[in-house]
Amino acid sequence: MQIINADRLLTRIRDLGDIGRDPHGQLTRLAASDNDRAGRDCLLGWLKAAGLDVVVDRIGNIFGIWRDEHNVDAAPVMLGSHIDTVINAGVYDGCYGVLAALEVIETLKERAIAANRPIVVAAFTNEEGVRYAPDMLGSLVYVGGLSVEAALATVGTDGSVLGEELERIGYGGDVDPGFRTPHAYVELHIEQGPVLEREGFSIGAVENLQGISWQRITINGDANHAGTTPMAMRRDAGLAAARVGLFLREHIARSNAPSVATIGTMRYEPDAINVIPSRAIFTVDLRDPDEGRLQALEATLSDFLTRVGAEEAVEISVERLARFQPVDFDQGIVAAIEASANARGLKNRRMTSGAGHDAQMIARIAPTAMIFVPSRDGISHNPREHTEPDDLVAGANVLLDVVERMVGRG
Amino acid sequence: MQIINADRLLTRIRDLGDIGRDPHGQLTRLAASDNDRAGRDCLLGWLKAAGLDVVVDRIGNIFGIWRDEHNVDAAPVMLGSHIDTVINAGVYDGCYGVLAALEVIETLKERAIAANRPIVVAAFTNEEGVRYAPDMLGSLVYVGGLSVEAALATVGTDGSVLGEELERIGYGGDVDPGFRTPHAYVELHIEQGPVLEREGFSIGAVENLQGISWQRITINGDANHAGTTPMAMRRDAGLAAARVGLFLREHIARSNAPSVATIGTMRYEPDAINVIPSRAIFTVDLRDPDEGRLQALEATLSDFLTRVGAEEAVEISVERLARFQPVDFDQGIVAAIEASANARGLKNRRMTSGAGHDAQMIARIAPTAMIFVPSRDGISHNPREHTEPDDLVAGANVLLDVVERMVGRG
Repeated sequence: MQIINADRLLTRIRDLGDIGRDPHGQLTRLAASDNDRAGRDCLLGWLKAAGLDVVVDRIGNIFGIWRDEHNVDAAPVMLGSHIDTVINAGVYDGCYGVLAALEVIETLKERAIAANRPIVVAAFTNEEGVRYAPDMLGSLVYVGGLSVEAALATVGTDGSVLGEELERIGYGGDVDPGFRTPHAYVELHIEQGPVLEREGFSIGAVENLQGISWQRITINGDANHAGTTPMAMRRDAGLAAARVGLFLREHIARSNAPSVATIGTMRYEPDAINVIPSRAIFTVDLRDPDEGRLQALEATLSDFLTRVGAEEAVEISVERLARFQPVDFDQGIVAAIEASANARGLKNRRMTSGAGHDAQMIARIAPTAMIFVPSRDGISHNPREHTEPDDLVAGANVLLDVVERMVGRG
Repeated sequence: MQIINADRLLTRIRDLGDIGRDPHGQLTRLAASDNDRAGRDCLLGWLKAAGLDVVVDRIGNIFGIWRDEHNVDAAPVMLGSHIDTVINAGVYDGCYGVLAALEVIETLKERAIAANRPIVVAAFTNEEGVRYAPDMLGSLVYVGGLSVEAALATVGTDGSVLGEELERIGYGGDVDPGFRTPHAYVELHIEQGPVLEREGFSIGAVENLQGISWQRITINGDANHAGTTPMAMRRDAGLAAARVGLFLREHIARSNAPSVATIGTMRYEPDAINVIPSRAIFTVDLRDPDEGRLQALEATLSDFLTRVGAEEAVEISVERLARFQPVDFDQGIVAAIEASANARGLKNRRMTSGAGHDAQMIARIAPTAMIFVPSRDGISHNPREHTEPDDLVAGANVLLDVVERMVGRG
């Protein structure tokens, strides 16, 4: 049983995590920013030092390819994730998957494994979506879900144009995205949720990814005086909004489904201490790994809004913000992940990804799965993001096994 | 039975309401602003034209005094309200009480009534509290609840100092506030609530004023990922906050008390669509005309917060923002208001003021009561604030009767 070079992997995670910090030590490498360039330059140095062929496509996705004359025409096994970050980020989200992929390739290369397929480490552009929308943009373009031209023309939250920024930082490549359709894609990632840690698992074999439904809901009532309007004569948009979140939680608890519902944003108008809210504007984030259940949940919410509108004498309007269907990953790869974890004595479980990942895009064109390792307290997108070194190494070793099996001459 | 000059009153309300409008027609006369000066100048012109002695005290309260050599030493009957406004105001709040007081005095004066007491129309500074805190500042200073020096040093929301602004607009007088303790104080005001209109009354005989309890509540949970954190593993500050408002409404409905509870402001942190709120910050406005019941309501809220903290695994902290005890008005004046309304065939009821008014301050030093007239749809602090002309005239006639009875030689 092979093992990866733990020191090399952990050192690189730390080193990449040191790039893009402000004077207060906060880590931010937004897509196509100067800090992103510094991170990309660092990664490119490692890819080249490992003897990989480096390709950058037109949307700035970076690929490090290990191939030889015998396997150059075979569809490659692709591994990867992203190295752009959110604002004030942790060091593991994305970077761990990219650097573990590189580590796996180097380990196999050093062991002089004869791979029957090229192995590619990929770092996709703008996965986080903080600077440019949508998130997972680079992988979306790679699979043809968005044209390169449209993607390059994307205007960021800071008014910048993605294509111009990629040129500016030297990462507007000339290869068309999608230049190679992978034989398979495997993405190793921190869970970004509490399940593995709380339940005592080291490895998650991710078999699917939740569908996501985002809606913005506006409730209109009457802005009357808080002191002079008897409770029974009110049309309180805030209380109507309060019922929505509590209803969704109760409904999901009753349904015993793995659905999640979140009201993450809330705004009252006029937002004055002594005025009954005339308007409440909030978002609802619904997720479920099953499309049928997600649709049923959306319908249940819609029915409830009708009921609340009538009972509270308020007007309710709904705006759809985003909708992604659930993604089912490849059962063969999932089984290989489980087999590896079992062989290594790593406690593991099948699970659903609650977050979006580049893997969901690549799954459109190739058999795909993900490997999760525990996130302490489920925290991510935060400097407190942490995964134990043993777990980081274990995850990389499982990735190594899965890849070795895929490229073995059998 | 005397009647006031309806045309003169309604014209003055309209004329004063035309002062302080911006190019879009929005009416704003914040305390001690240029627009307030224009409103004050207009009022002073009318007071002088009516032959009243004008006095401005050090906090800018304006008094128009009708007195003669026979009654100059008797404690005056004081009538009034305020002429400062909120931002984008209606024309009735405050101004109606001041101009009706002037109208009553002119009517009595024209009829050559021999009053055994002076009658004073008062316009108190900064009742609304939009520019300077606290609200009802001028009447609070008048009764000695706040020193003139402290009040003049008040810094406004725009960084201005009240004393400097009063000097600047020419309304920093030299008479000490409280220079005359009234024999009685009567304030005529629009209801600013829906009760009179909905129940078909023309006159409210206001016998008390609700106590007010303002608190700011902060709930701290965990900002986890909306997709990856199962519902049962969440510490959602937003849902905990949602329970508070709904609980208060349900509790009040069960208690059958006239209490009101309002959550008028709400803020989530981090306020992101895909992040569970780690923090919810909101205000609670509780009111009840009975101090014991108000205290019980505060205790019930406190107990509920303890319960929610435990059940939702969140930390809750409470900050007290303001607390006013209920005020009981003078039963003799209330009875006189009822008697007048009945004599005039005006449908009337006793009621509680849900809003704060200068009358609650003057009640500390003199027998006080208020007269309410209906507000269409209960709307106030808004350009849609409206009271029917007949109701405005009826209220002023009731005020006339009450005053005539107080100053009659009997």
